[in-house]
Amino acid sequence: MLWIKTIPEMRDLVARWRKNGESVGLVPTMGFFHQGHLALMKKARQENEEVVVSLFVNPTQFGPGEDFEQYPRNRERDEKLAEEAGVDVVFNPAAVEMYDREFQTFVDLTELPQGLCGAARPGHFRGVATVVTKLFNIVQPERAYFGEKDAQQLRVIKRMAVDLNIPVDIRAVPTVREEDGLAMSSRNTYLSPEERQAALVLSKSLFFAKAQVETGERNSERLKEKMKELITGEPLVSLEYLEIRASDTLRPVSIIAEEVLIALAARAGKTRLIDNITINPEGRR
Amino acid sequence: MLWIKTIPEMRDLVARWRKNGESVGLVPTMGFFHQGHLALMKKARQENEEVVVSLFVNPTQFGPGEDFEQYPRNRERDEKLAEEAGVDVVFNPAAVEMYDREFQTFVDLTELPQGLCGAARPGHFRGVATVVTKLFNIVQPERAYFGEKDAQQLRVIKRMAVDLNIPVDIRAVPTVREEDGLAMSSRNTYLSPEERQAALVLSKSLFFAKAQVETGERNSERLKEKMKELITGEPLVSLEYLEIRASDTLRPVSIIAEEVLIALAARAGKTRLIDNITINPEGRR
Repeated sequence: MLWIKTIPEMRDLVARWRKNGESVGLVPTMGFFHQGHLALMKKARQENEEVVVSLFVNPTQFGPGEDFEQYPRNRERDEKLAEEAGVDVVFNPAAVEMYDREFQTFVDLTELPQGLCGAARPGHFRGVATVVTKLFNIVQPERAYFGEKDAQQLRVIKRMAVDLNIPVDIRAVPTVREEDGLAMSSRNTYLSPEERQAALVLSKSLFFAKAQVETGERNSERLKEKMKELITGEPLVSLEYLEIRASDTLRPVSIIAEEVLIALAARAGKTRLIDNITINPEGRR
Repeated sequence: MLWIKTIPEMRDLVARWRKNGESVGLVPTMGFFHQGHLALMKKARQENEEVVVSLFVNPTQFGPGEDFEQYPRNRERDEKLAEEAGVDVVFNPAAVEMYDREFQTFVDLTELPQGLCGAARPGHFRGVATVVTKLFNIVQPERAYFGEKDAQQLRVIKRMAVDLNIPVDIRAVPTVREEDGLAMSSRNTYLSPEERQAALVLSKSLFFAKAQVETGERNSERLKEKMKELITGEPLVSLEYLEIRASDTLRPVSIIAEEVLIALAARAGKTRLIDNITINPEGRR
């Protein structure tokens, strides 16, 4: 496995692959790999001749006061895990390599970044869309892999690829959960044992919502109230948002008549966690 | 020569070219070709195996009240001229092909679009940067050709390509002028004979500025005043802006010590015209 730190080196390798007609899969990450990342890598490994994992803690998607500096990093462990997952290249550029002194170009969407995580994190999805565009242009993959855990990000990237005619197939990979239901996240490492236990109420509330819809609940507001009741029963957890949206456009829905995304963000102690579920009221997927 | 109207057809052709390892040059245009466009096509023809001219009057770069509806169009003439210039493909998508109902992704720059034409045309360079990104992703050229006449646009596109790591070589082609100095523009067709004559003061003022710098003038404000005096002597012409900026960053300069761009926009009658010159005080280019 190669560990590449510069854009020219990455480009040279990509040019060679293209010349040989090899397919390339890209898994964009911020590192500190968990089972969710490994599921993305596994899928990329199955579908492509060459697999690139980018590892870049992207400063432009963190807001002031967010955890950019503290974001967990562990190069040795990441290198070992990527190698075991059959990754061909880890692309790990420095921030100055990605953003020069005169950098000033951003990719932004007008609607999908509104609300949900975008409400508490202004500029976050602009940072994500911009860095992903850059990575797509550097690695030029046929396919790129994103987790369903970052539901709003996945929709932003999919829409961006359509709108800008980016020739990349965006592949969604289901959220990987711990045995007890907690969605995998690099930020889970921040949780105390008590917070870790309390955080379970988030996935529980989503599974509860799914059961509710399966037994006939179609009213968004009522369903949200029931979920909030469950979550507020857990004093270590404070809800940031809980929304039921049309799964594709993320527009609010009052009646659950088509596939919906139920998404939430909450703090367990000081740690911000997100989770979501998509539910089809007709039982189709 | 092929005339292609859909993105999938264009993509299929591009995929075939790529497979054969053929180099592709793209000339983005809004049609109604003049000698300036033909100079871009000629250069592209010299440097590439395949030449694509995109012909798309892009609605997102026109503001309310601008001449989107009236922008001159002449398919038959354009087809003949492109064919004669040795173009392989004219890519001429419909607006619905480029912007679907849910379109919402824009590429924008924070600094270069400020001032100059950006002041009077808010959103213009956002529209340009976005459509050019789309065209780059559809056609995937090795090289793309832009005229120096659209000085701010050229710098926006160059910076965008660097910032987003777009693997396209941006090639600048000098402004083509009529015998008497008027810069070629599709909008010249709007001019009455009297306005056409009066408009000459614009290029004259730029050549005058160059001579002034060559004989030692280094003070931006003083040089602008002299130019304005010349231009205001022409009653049919009203100046929108006249600026002296650093040629690469477009930041204002008070002393002309490095290569500068002198750029102006003016109305001759109702027709908006732009022109510019780059001047190196040391005589280097």
